[in-house]
Amino acid sequence: MALDRLKSVAQHVTGTGPAPHPFDPLSNAEIDAAVQIIGKELGQLHYNAVTLREPAKAEMLKWLEDSVNIPRPSRVADVVAIAPGGKVYDGLVDLKNGKIIKWDVLEGVQPLITMEDLQTVEHVMRKDPNVIEQCVISGIPREDMHKVYCDPWTIGYDHRFGNGVRLQQALMYYRPHVDDSQYSFPLDFCPIFDADKAEIIHIDIPDIRRPVNQAKPNNYHVAAIENEGGYRTDIKPINITQPEGVSFKVEGRVIDWQNWKVHVGFNYKEGIVLNNITYNDKGTVRPIFYRLSLVEMVVPYGNPEHPHQRKHAFDLGEYGGGYMTNSLSLGCDCKGAIHYMDAAFVNRAGESTTIKNAVCIHEEDAGILFKHTDFRDESVLVTRGRKLIISHIFTAANYEYCVYWIFHQDGTVQLEIKLTGILNTYAMLPGEDTKGWGTEVYPGVNAHNHQHLFCLRIDPNIDGPNNTVFQVDASQGAGEVGSKENPYGNAFYAKRTKYSTVSEAISDYDGVTSRTWDMCNTNKINPYSHKPSSYKLVSREVPRLLPKEGSLVWKRAGFARHAVHVTPYDDEQLYPAGRHVPQTSGEPSKGIPEWIANGNASIDNTDVVLWHTFGITHFPAPEDFPIMPAEPMTLLLRPRNFFTKNPALDVPPSYCSTPSQIASKSKVTDAADKMSKLVVTGGGAECCQK
Amino acid sequence: MALDRLKSVAQHVTGTGPAPHPFDPLSNAEIDAAVQIIGKELGQLHYNAVTLREPAKAEMLKWLEDSVNIPRPSRVADVVAIAPGGKVYDGLVDLKNGKIIKWDVLEGVQPLITMEDLQTVEHVMRKDPNVIEQCVISGIPREDMHKVYCDPWTIGYDHRFGNGVRLQQALMYYRPHVDDSQYSFPLDFCPIFDADKAEIIHIDIPDIRRPVNQAKPNNYHVAAIENEGGYRTDIKPINITQPEGVSFKVEGRVIDWQNWKVHVGFNYKEGIVLNNITYNDKGTVRPIFYRLSLVEMVVPYGNPEHPHQRKHAFDLGEYGGGYMTNSLSLGCDCKGAIHYMDAAFVNRAGESTTIKNAVCIHEEDAGILFKHTDFRDESVLVTRGRKLIISHIFTAANYEYCVYWIFHQDGTVQLEIKLTGILNTYAMLPGEDTKGWGTEVYPGVNAHNHQHLFCLRIDPNIDGPNNTVFQVDASQGAGEVGSKENPYGNAFYAKRTKYSTVSEAISDYDGVTSRTWDMCNTNKINPYSHKPSSYKLVSREVPRLLPKEGSLVWKRAGFARHAVHVTPYDDEQLYPAGRHVPQTSGEPSKGIPEWIANGNASIDNTDVVLWHTFGITHFPAPEDFPIMPAEPMTLLLRPRNFFTKNPALDVPPSYCSTPSQIASKSKVTDAADKMSKLVVTGGGAECCQK
Repeated sequence: MALDRLKSVAQHVTGTGPAPHPFDPLSNAEIDAAVQIIGKELGQLHYNAVTLREPAKAEMLKWLEDSVNIPRPSRVADVVAIAPGGKVYDGLVDLKNGKIIKWDVLEGVQPLITMEDLQTVEHVMRKDPNVIEQCVISGIPREDMHKVYCDPWTIGYDHRFGNGVRLQQALMYYRPHVDDSQYSFPLDFCPIFDADKAEIIHIDIPDIRRPVNQAKPNNYHVAAIENEGGYRTDIKPINITQPEGVSFKVEGRVIDWQNWKVHVGFNYKEGIVLNNITYNDKGTVRPIFYRLSLVEMVVPYGNPEHPHQRKHAFDLGEYGGGYMTNSLSLGCDCKGAIHYMDAAFVNRAGESTTIKNAVCIHEEDAGILFKHTDFRDESVLVTRGRKLIISHIFTAANYEYCVYWIFHQDGTVQLEIKLTGILNTYAMLPGEDTKGWGTEVYPGVNAHNHQHLFCLRIDPNIDGPNNTVFQVDASQGAGEVGSKENPYGNAFYAKRTKYSTVSEAISDYDGVTSRTWDMCNTNKINPYSHKPSSYKLVSREVPRLLPKEGSLVWKRAGFARHAVHVTPYDDEQLYPAGRHVPQTSGEPSKGIPEWIANGNASIDNTDVVLWHTFGITHFPAPEDFPIMPAEPMTLLLRPRNFFTKNPALDVPPSYCSTPSQIASKSKVTDAADKMSKLVVTGGGAECCQK
Repeated sequence: MALDRLKSVAQHVTGTGPAPHPFDPLSNAEIDAAVQIIGKELGQLHYNAVTLREPAKAEMLKWLEDSVNIPRPSRVADVVAIAPGGKVYDGLVDLKNGKIIKWDVLEGVQPLITMEDLQTVEHVMRKDPNVIEQCVISGIPREDMHKVYCDPWTIGYDHRFGNGVRLQQALMYYRPHVDDSQYSFPLDFCPIFDADKAEIIHIDIPDIRRPVNQAKPNNYHVAAIENEGGYRTDIKPINITQPEGVSFKVEGRVIDWQNWKVHVGFNYKEGIVLNNITYNDKGTVRPIFYRLSLVEMVVPYGNPEHPHQRKHAFDLGEYGGGYMTNSLSLGCDCKGAIHYMDAAFVNRAGESTTIKNAVCIHEEDAGILFKHTDFRDESVLVTRGRKLIISHIFTAANYEYCVYWIFHQDGTVQLEIKLTGILNTYAMLPGEDTKGWGTEVYPGVNAHNHQHLFCLRIDPNIDGPNNTVFQVDASQGAGEVGSKENPYGNAFYAKRTKYSTVSEAISDYDGVTSRTWDMCNTNKINPYSHKPSSYKLVSREVPRLLPKEGSLVWKRAGFARHAVHVTPYDDEQLYPAGRHVPQTSGEPSKGIPEWIANGNASIDNTDVVLWHTFGITHFPAPEDFPIMPAEPMTLLLRPRNFFTKNPALDVPPSYCSTPSQIASKSKVTDAADKMSKLVVTGGGAECCQK
């Protein structure tokens, strides 16, 4: 490590330089410092992760309250390393004092698979004689092994191998040409890779053999499209510009926009982490969320045949949404005026690395924010909205996840996820019956049914940390038609069920009642509605976990058994399928199932965390292939009884006329966007004029 | 009517001028012609509607097939008129032959309430001595009647008055100042207006009296915001421009965009009607939907006390989404390069009128359409999407509905609705208990619980008119964990249930199975997946109708009892709560309940219509007041097994690199948007640079 970097770390921690915000991810210098400190004591290790150990919440809340007088929480590195031979270490390094403060040796756990881990498998697999033999059986000449590819996945859990040895399963593919999409040429066997030995230790071979697909390649790259008639030529540019700059301010990693303030963190597992989300309500800075992030996901596949039960990737816990994040490029991934943030990680050798442009921050027009016309005189107000979008995209082997955290002027926080990329595929014989477990999306290509189940961790801080969660169900009033209390039968209301204990909060979505969940501060009552200050979780894409109770997925992905769990806050509880997910057996289940073991624990008017599992069930179709049009899914966190009125009333309107202005024909407010133009049409030639 | 207009009609029908497309709404000239033809025979009438009688589907399909040789369907006006004394006429006028071809006199029905009908009530009410007396009781001096306002609603149905007399109920408000929002000053009594006599015939007075609100006004107009600290000043412009014009072509009312073609109609009830939606699939024009529109909605309120049960507006059937449509303005309602269409209607006197800019058509950037990065070498494809948006906005008294029909490049049709405007409010005493039927959104202002339930009429034409609807439920495989057929318990599949008969198709949403509905052409099998060519209805905002079975709303809004009904196609079946909705008793129920009476009617592989009820249940909060931030709701119609691959592969990518280009460092495809800029931040001053 360069001396100047060490110096800069020292400056940070001694306060002589610009100190990082306690929520800031570790800088490259801090990562390098942590590795150096460990190296001095323990020699060379394989690093799996060096990331920020977030400050204890109790300490951090005090500092946020008074950052002038309260000491800044110290910088601690959370380290996962693997020693030669496979021994796993979990450690904490105090960067200020240059000391290891915790160093545990773990048995029977496997840290996540890094991109470097993934890269190794393909090279080893291609040289393995048994793999070569299987390729030959599949119809691939042995001299064509450079055309054989694999997507290495964690093995999930396979009882034959347990979790003592670090394993990957290699999902096998073939490329006739180096630029062909391999997903049209899946192979039917599955080698198992031992990371310690760096060799293939087993191959799962199906009873029915399916030779390599003979269909012609199905590609989406430029040459392929040009061969098939070329690109459409009738798309005219849409230019989005902000000539006067953007409406947000950036201070370090704190974004200030339209009364919102949010700290944008990033780590190797979750990707974007939003901290200390506040809203300036006419001069009063009100806390809303202490921490908001996607903390886990699981993608179970629905084909019951061995070894497809092993396909249930935990893309965050087993690979890391941060590690897999894309370096975004201007005018491609994001359009307009863009602010990027980089991400710093450690590599296996212990060197810090950087992913440039890991996070994109930009504004977008959001259409009509509110409008009303008085039918009497056509006096009208129309106000257009804005949104601020904080996004990243990560690639999990075949799939892409585009994650958009969207802030709205009306106090709403929206999470939108777009799924794109390529379907995971498996070989099939001509005329073979998929038995309903998948779809033939291209001749010889079986795309299996699967679910994408995300776990959103919401650490609410609604006007302070002591919050209570209520279930809200749209319900019919009591009394039949003709009864005294409901004479016309039209009575309905929001039935509120308070979750007092952990076990009461274990709940599923109910489409019949359009169920929502309110995170409330019961100590802060809205002066108008006399209801507690709240944020409501509105989420409609909430399939149940389809693998059955007792199945491997059910055991390993305990968080996904229900749509909502609520737990008392605990600094140690971040990852709902456990801290180290690969090769967990689910016996016992890690994460949430452990944390809800004490069902009687109180979650009433205390510091709580809400865990929400949502997602989609995907039954593939040919339209999803050879590359999938983005499938969007969204959820909202909406203020209810939090404000005393629409908090966006002071967003300048595009147009406003009042009845008296209409009557007196006096001047109205006209701030219509002057860049908008009318399209003049005719004769097939469209152009624009004001 | 001017001679040149009559001439132009004559030209249309004789073929000497540019003939209207058979789906085109009646032009002003055609409306004028229809009225003249009727006037000659029947003298002066009050016109309620003169609109296009759409051609019979059988005739129209033939013409669409071969518009050169098949005669153009003739232009027929569908007329509703009211004679002095209240007699109601339903008529058809053949515009070519200048003849009335049907003229029915109706008993016990009331056509919808027009804007002119609405405008009358306030003037009459202000002069009524009994209303004045009630205002005085409410605390309003009798000399202040000019400050008393009402939103006239249809009466719904009140058994005391039946449907022989044309009635409106006046929801009463007060404005301290002409520019104050009246919704903060609701009055507690409800006059009933007789349209024939033009007088107040009754006043509903509650047992508990609630004097006019003494709170200070709660406004959203410019002066109010400026008084309260002014507008925020930190919003920088976002410019959206299309310097080379737009990517769609307009021929008459047919829009041609990105392989889509759609005819954009408009009528007084539904507003936008989309007809003959086709997709050009590599040279083959494939029909998808014959007709798509919102055909009805109902907004039941949940307060059981008299007379609030009467608040359940059918905003389309009782007022008309077309009649209430806003004249849109550039840079306010829509931003960018805009094509507008006007709407022509008839007024009560029989003159044609025009709403300028009733429909907005424009393109928007749609973010990432698809993306994939190969983790091996970071070869990547990223393609941005577009959407085409056809929209209108209508104002139903207090509420605004913004309706966006969105076409995507991947073959998806999306319907998005934004609800904005102002809550319907009722008076409450200080400290009064809302009993859960509403929320005090401002002191003295009770906003009642309500639902917005829309009925979407889908006339599918998936590769032809003979279609079949399947219910699709994400379901667990048979067999417990450890069983032979499901050893790992992970099996799941799409359970498909064919709707063979009308009664089988009566179905509700199931959140547990993420239920969707496939509209299929079982005669057209996808060559890859071997599944029928389909469009899937994906809709997640599907609350049940909360008013109980047997209630007035349940009887009148038969369509809303279930999420989906499917009926055999019938030219006469357009409006699922009946053709004339005001003052229907629901005994018997009109519309869908009549059409599904023959439950055994076949809907298997025949021309069918799918009726989908969706919407939201709204429990108000102070954030929704004094004007409501737009609440969005959406549904998708997605191609499944319709195409053999992603139909948007030929959309030019922003960036594409292949493995061989990466390896050889050769030229890649870089068409990144060059207008996008980096934000340079620091010191609070953000500007942009490339």
